[in-house]
Amino acid sequence: MSRRVTGPEIERLIQLLARLPGLGPRSARRAALQLVKKKDQLLEPLAEALVRVRDTVKVCSVCGNVDTADPCIVCTDPRRDASVIVVVEDVSDLWALERAGAIDARYHVLGGVLSPLNGIGPDDLTIAGLIERARDPAVREVILAVNATVDGQTTAHYVTDRLQGLDVRVSRLAHGVPVGGELDYLDEGTLAAAIRSRTPF
Amino acid sequence: MSRRVTGPEIERLIQLLARLPGLGPRSARRAALQLVKKKDQLLEPLAEALVRVRDTVKVCSVCGNVDTADPCIVCTDPRRDASVIVVVEDVSDLWALERAGAIDARYHVLGGVLSPLNGIGPDDLTIAGLIERARDPAVREVILAVNATVDGQTTAHYVTDRLQGLDVRVSRLAHGVPVGGELDYLDEGTLAAAIRSRTPF
Repeated sequence: MSRRVTGPEIERLIQLLARLPGLGPRSARRAALQLVKKKDQLLEPLAEALVRVRDTVKVCSVCGNVDTADPCIVCTDPRRDASVIVVVEDVSDLWALERAGAIDARYHVLGGVLSPLNGIGPDDLTIAGLIERARDPAVREVILAVNATVDGQTTAHYVTDRLQGLDVRVSRLAHGVPVGGELDYLDEGTLAAAIRSRTPF
Repeated sequence: MSRRVTGPEIERLIQLLARLPGLGPRSARRAALQLVKKKDQLLEPLAEALVRVRDTVKVCSVCGNVDTADPCIVCTDPRRDASVIVVVEDVSDLWALERAGAIDARYHVLGGVLSPLNGIGPDDLTIAGLIERARDPAVREVILAVNATVDGQTTAHYVTDRLQGLDVRVSRLAHGVPVGGELDYLDEGTLAAAIRSRTPF
């Protein structure tokens, strides 16, 4: 701001809020003002929730999910099929698949994708941990549920190479028309893949 | 989520983040995961910043700005023109005018606009405080810098009525073409106003 119109405490809060994904400088200012306006209903509970998360939440040492327990609630759930590991880039992908109720298996969070341009190599991801888990004779299949981006597919190929020689099937998500999707809005690659992988009606 | 995949502490944090303006459920989840990933660089500083804001920031009892001092830094700045009060709906509007360096005056934050449909009447805004301030003989002009919306303009008319009889000039922001704006994208009302208020070239 050209001149100071408020205290440094609130400017610090705005700066930190603006570092959250999804909040730019303008929405961070609006969020900070909202917090000041609703000290009791919003600011105080948020401060408490942050401290509780700091003190209780950890990254699962097996799969990379975040939870209060380690191993996490997904890894220790006896009703899940322990023979299938679904490999995802990020915790948010794991949660998305669970919201969809897509599969009843275990997961492995890579923590990103290979990206030589950004200096992210195999050792920056949890690939070694995945290979270790896949050696367990109980594991029969690894599903690569990475994003259908260039980096995601490169990572899928690399992981597949590393899994060679182990007694596991490696599969990946189907490409095709999203449910509810309109053909006219889809790219050529998706349409071609949907034709190639067509199913009997 | 269909099944629990994480602890209630993190779900509570997601719920609270989703109540911030600008964050929906999806971006709140991403923000929460980011906070867990960056405990030291982001979560901890944000928790501290919230507590500091809670303990130090207050609403200015004169103008309604938020600051660590009351009266705020704007109200107590001796270099500002104390004869002009700029009336705004919200603190964010005050900050926007200051970022623009638009005027070197004092402000008055109404705290919203009149909106009978939402049950917001004159007593829910700081209109009484504004009238009181405008009685000060040092005040010569009140600029109504409310939004150019129906509710904003209704509020401007109401405030103008209440100021009648006091020895102050009442003015409002000019309507016209935004700087850098293209005529083809502007509504008829704006174009008509820009022609009506045309200035010599």
